[in-house]
Amino acid sequence: MEETFVPFQGIKNDLKARLMCYKQDWTGGFSAGFRILAPTTYIFFASAIPVISFGEQLERDTDGVLTAVQTLASTALCGIIHSIIGGQPLLILGVAEPTVLMYTFMFNFAKGRPDLGPKLFLAWAAWVCVWTAVLLFLLAVLGACSIINRFTRVAGELFGLLIAMLFMQQAIKGLVDEFRTPARENPRLTEFIPSWRFANGMFALVLSFGLLLTALRSRKARSWRYGSGWLRGFVADYGVPTMVLVWTAVSYIPTASVPHGIPRRLFSPNPWSPGAYENWTVIKACLAQNDMLNVPVLYIIGAFIPATMIAVLYYFDHSVASQLAQQKEFNLRKPSSFHYDLLLLGFLTILCGLIGIPPANGVIPQSPMHTKNLATLKHQLLRSRLVATARKSMGKNASLGQMYENMEETYKQMQTPLIYQSASSQGLRELKESTIQLASSMGNIDAPVDETVFDVEKEIDDLLPVEVKEQRVSNLLQSTMVGACVAAMPVLKMIPTSVLWGYFAFMAIESLPGNQFWERILLLFTAPSRRYKVLEDYHATFVETVPFKTIATFTIFQTTYLLTCFGLTWIPLAGVLFPLLIMLLVPVRQYLLPKFFKGAHLQDLDAAEYEEAPALPFNLACEGEAGMGPYAEDGEILDEIITRSRGEIRRISSPKVTSSTATPVKDPKSVESPRYTEKTFSPRVSELRGDRSPRSGTRPISPRSGAARPSKLGN
Amino acid sequence: MEETFVPFQGIKNDLKARLMCYKQDWTGGFSAGFRILAPTTYIFFASAIPVISFGEQLERDTDGVLTAVQTLASTALCGIIHSIIGGQPLLILGVAEPTVLMYTFMFNFAKGRPDLGPKLFLAWAAWVCVWTAVLLFLLAVLGACSIINRFTRVAGELFGLLIAMLFMQQAIKGLVDEFRTPARENPRLTEFIPSWRFANGMFALVLSFGLLLTALRSRKARSWRYGSGWLRGFVADYGVPTMVLVWTAVSYIPTASVPHGIPRRLFSPNPWSPGAYENWTVIKACLAQNDMLNVPVLYIIGAFIPATMIAVLYYFDHSVASQLAQQKEFNLRKPSSFHYDLLLLGFLTILCGLIGIPPANGVIPQSPMHTKNLATLKHQLLRSRLVATARKSMGKNASLGQMYENMEETYKQMQTPLIYQSASSQGLRELKESTIQLASSMGNIDAPVDETVFDVEKEIDDLLPVEVKEQRVSNLLQSTMVGACVAAMPVLKMIPTSVLWGYFAFMAIESLPGNQFWERILLLFTAPSRRYKVLEDYHATFVETVPFKTIATFTIFQTTYLLTCFGLTWIPLAGVLFPLLIMLLVPVRQYLLPKFFKGAHLQDLDAAEYEEAPALPFNLACEGEAGMGPYAEDGEILDEIITRSRGEIRRISSPKVTSSTATPVKDPKSVESPRYTEKTFSPRVSELRGDRSPRSGTRPISPRSGAARPSKLGN
Repeated sequence: MEETFVPFQGIKNDLKARLMCYKQDWTGGFSAGFRILAPTTYIFFASAIPVISFGEQLERDTDGVLTAVQTLASTALCGIIHSIIGGQPLLILGVAEPTVLMYTFMFNFAKGRPDLGPKLFLAWAAWVCVWTAVLLFLLAVLGACSIINRFTRVAGELFGLLIAMLFMQQAIKGLVDEFRTPARENPRLTEFIPSWRFANGMFALVLSFGLLLTALRSRKARSWRYGSGWLRGFVADYGVPTMVLVWTAVSYIPTASVPHGIPRRLFSPNPWSPGAYENWTVIKACLAQNDMLNVPVLYIIGAFIPATMIAVLYYFDHSVASQLAQQKEFNLRKPSSFHYDLLLLGFLTILCGLIGIPPANGVIPQSPMHTKNLATLKHQLLRSRLVATARKSMGKNASLGQMYENMEETYKQMQTPLIYQSASSQGLRELKESTIQLASSMGNIDAPVDETVFDVEKEIDDLLPVEVKEQRVSNLLQSTMVGACVAAMPVLKMIPTSVLWGYFAFMAIESLPGNQFWERILLLFTAPSRRYKVLEDYHATFVETVPFKTIATFTIFQTTYLLTCFGLTWIPLAGVLFPLLIMLLVPVRQYLLPKFFKGAHLQDLDAAEYEEAPALPFNLACEGEAGMGPYAEDGEILDEIITRSRGEIRRISSPKVTSSTATPVKDPKSVESPRYTEKTFSPRVSELRGDRSPRSGTRPISPRSGAARPSKLGN
Repeated sequence: MEETFVPFQGIKNDLKARLMCYKQDWTGGFSAGFRILAPTTYIFFASAIPVISFGEQLERDTDGVLTAVQTLASTALCGIIHSIIGGQPLLILGVAEPTVLMYTFMFNFAKGRPDLGPKLFLAWAAWVCVWTAVLLFLLAVLGACSIINRFTRVAGELFGLLIAMLFMQQAIKGLVDEFRTPARENPRLTEFIPSWRFANGMFALVLSFGLLLTALRSRKARSWRYGSGWLRGFVADYGVPTMVLVWTAVSYIPTASVPHGIPRRLFSPNPWSPGAYENWTVIKACLAQNDMLNVPVLYIIGAFIPATMIAVLYYFDHSVASQLAQQKEFNLRKPSSFHYDLLLLGFLTILCGLIGIPPANGVIPQSPMHTKNLATLKHQLLRSRLVATARKSMGKNASLGQMYENMEETYKQMQTPLIYQSASSQGLRELKESTIQLASSMGNIDAPVDETVFDVEKEIDDLLPVEVKEQRVSNLLQSTMVGACVAAMPVLKMIPTSVLWGYFAFMAIESLPGNQFWERILLLFTAPSRRYKVLEDYHATFVETVPFKTIATFTIFQTTYLLTCFGLTWIPLAGVLFPLLIMLLVPVRQYLLPKFFKGAHLQDLDAAEYEEAPALPFNLACEGEAGMGPYAEDGEILDEIITRSRGEIRRISSPKVTSSTATPVKDPKSVESPRYTEKTFSPRVSELRGDRSPRSGTRPISPRSGAARPSKLGN
């Protein structure tokens, strides 16, 4: 994206580009069928649960002026609008921790002012929203987003980690509070006598750790050894929500002697309860703008200060969330839309302000999660279609060549029509090579193919590039479901708070892999003899190209910066400034850091995905062999690809693994050979090729026996 | 071992053989120095903790006639005697669950008889011990142990799993009881009001799962990426005991509002407390044999019935424990001693009976654990010595040939002198090959070697076979420490019972890997498409040679049998018969099963380690490459080898891994090659060799860069 600051230019481009694929956004979504529900549910939980407990937090901090009802309403409203008329439908909107922090700061300020006070808080907040919107409009119109590329890894990942820390902090705080008597409760209730408080705390520990551990496991389900394929797939897709249900169920087991309040569950007024009713009236009031006009002029002007902060925050947060949702390794086909989305965000902010609910903006880590899940979806879709085609053409005794044609045909059909170009069919060209190779090795290039030459399932897995099902349906659905939560409050209130804390920890941890900054922090604690593993696991080329001292200094600098930001959020009123600190990172990276680090090194440490890819093939190769050994099914490889970082698309070419495991057991030669080779050469060296020569002649690869094996086991 | 039933023949042979290496048993032990403490502590905990809580269990079941003090005393006494004059010093003695069960049955019987009653119970038990001893003498003298080879996997592993189940049962029972009011306690205490009971239960869950999970992790420490080598080593060696301490410490955190009794801790009278004093007087009485003579003759004769059971149990348990401690893959150099040990066990039983403590016998899983830990120890010792030698000869600019000589010299020195034969130096011969190979590939066969040609640390790791530090010191030390526990009771009582339950679960789980029966049970739940993984992970060749249906039927049969045995232990009085059921398995295997299963299949499913080894090299090879990739340090490979099953000695030849990881990144050719190979061949196929030819010529393995890399990272 070239940096153009011509007014409205960016917005116009975005609109033009997105309009081209608008129809396809919907058709594509519906064509996916019920499968769309997997990513939808996952993101729904990922976005609803935090919003609910941010609501709880907000309720505590604003003396109940704002509750989970409002945060949910805002998330749903903005989400629905954005998913329909927004630019980038992969972007998930929600009321995020930073917003909650800002609103808390604002409330504490308002509360202190006699001529403002809690009563006029919402009205004043509305003014803040108005100002914020104005600023956002300016930024959008003047094309501020075109400097988005200057938000390099350093800034983005630091922000990502900050969010993760805030999530984790929430989790820990929450757990600790389970041992305490909540302020708003009547401490004379049985469940607050020391013994029950202690019991409740311990129960909370069990529930939250239970959820955390099981949820983390379930995400890896595709690589499990047990259970049928669909079960594993189901667990991987719906495991986390399921776990929330399971652990909620568990929390109901001890009923007999345990008082009603244990474990503690969500506390939030039903939207139709008197408490909440009052809120809605406030909103009416706001709509009528009486309140807003009652705000003293001084404060209306003063509202500009928090507004700038929020504007900066949203500008950054919204753009980075959108950016992370469109990382290069996702191979998105549809255009981005930073300018237009920012403009829309402005309108949404005003809207929220007027109806007296906290505004929502693009959220991390949900947005990247969303794309990730859609990639898995797309992969499954492509896969099933291609396998079908291949089988069909085999049925017709087609030769490899023909089959390849057919498959390419199908593949083309499934491409998003517009920007369909070279890149997309690359995967298949590779298939052609590989299969031809295979065939020739079997000496039957034109003979009709059959499963023995071409192990469909596997081969296809190997050649599918990462692609994302880009559409608006999942986003619309999930935000509608969030909206439904407002009505479903009574049901939601059955979830124990401790389960929420567990879920927070889960989200924090889920957002770490692929964050190079995090990987470097880990690297600091890695024994020198094992640093090479980082190279293997994350393809972090910088480990090779940058001297460790530099990596260390850079990481330590970044960490200190992170901790400063984190610390700042704790300071009562100055905390309002933390967004500035993050924005500040952009100039720091551009002008300050080069003074301390070699340009090349900075380049490597701060490289965007695609910049690093070229350096990689080698590591990928050995990863392909050593690392991928255990993996067999489509989804899990993808999980790999996407949870991990940089240019791992290559990795897809590994799981061929399954097709021919242990083949040569049937091969007499291989039986005595290994001893010899094992002793003489190190396997790692062998992985790095070159030393196989002694036996390379001895046996051609015979996919036949490979294909034969499963059937044998299967009987 | 040929089956000879000539009276005393077996005992004589055993004695002769063991006497030959008796001196070396001690010298070898002391030569290990402080390192011997690692296996010692590990086994001490593994043997003391269960004994303590079996003591607790016994106390509940015998109305306090027998307590942890007695079980500890017995374990220590028998352990010390056995470690000094016993045959096989690898065998760990202890009061085991079966004994506890038998004693409980006996006590319930005695309690019911007016002319026997609790008072005469110990005296009557003494008679039982006498009879048991007599039977054991007979069995030993008549060489019953020479049929030990008929105790095939089926029986051994079934028994192993039964023990694991009993441990797990204990853990679960214990955890459940944490929610209840213990019978012997005064229910009016504050800690037994519902709220505190619930709190205690939840706390127990936290502590026991905490211990279980952390302990399991710590065992894998050697393969961690973080922390320095020695730290990882320490955690792996002492992690489990440390965790017991840590979680005990944690249990002391909530002090403020929590009553004294929470969490519950070990309840056991100090040996000098009045309660216990009484016991010791009973013992005196027994010693004076007054009591024993007071036992009505009818019961003295009747004592024969339980005696047979115990005799059968001990004969089997003792032999199998000893057998499992001497599995083929441990490459033990010193002879076994089944007959003599059984004879000694007889004496020990009488001794225990007379002084009124429950007798101890060879225990599972501690005994195999013991050998396993000693193997790790030996590996570390060998390694450090050889590395030193290699370095020395390099210092002297020795050629590969010379260096090899020196190393073989050192190696010979470290062999147990007596049965030193071909097998032992095999490892080094392989080193020679490999290094020569390497050298010639570098084209400098007679040039002085240096680290670049011969990466000492790694190369040596690769060639070391599994060997066990066979000696008596560790056993003597650990049983002495157990004895010390009797005095240390007040300290032990600080351990929360919940930590014990966690430890029980840990031991149950630790005993599973390598148990082929268990692997087959898992196989039943493995998706057909993934069964090949079993092959990879456990080298379970039977997966290939035996049709799945047969495996399933066999496993289901075995499982039913197991459950029957397990169920039997629950039946009040008939439970005394469960040892018979297990012995019965030997004829069943030999005469019944062949009627239902093909001989070849049975052979495979029931193969002893060494029988399967030959079939394996192949899988080992690919395991070596794919599986071992991630591993780098000596210990962990060994953990692998030994926790896993069958003939994995080969595996040692993998970690060369580290030395040359990612080397060829510096090699221009390899940078573009991978893409090609990855696409054209499946990595798995490549692991199964043959397809490396395209590039095999392009670059010779250059350990130089391999050696260079750490230094690069290290800076």
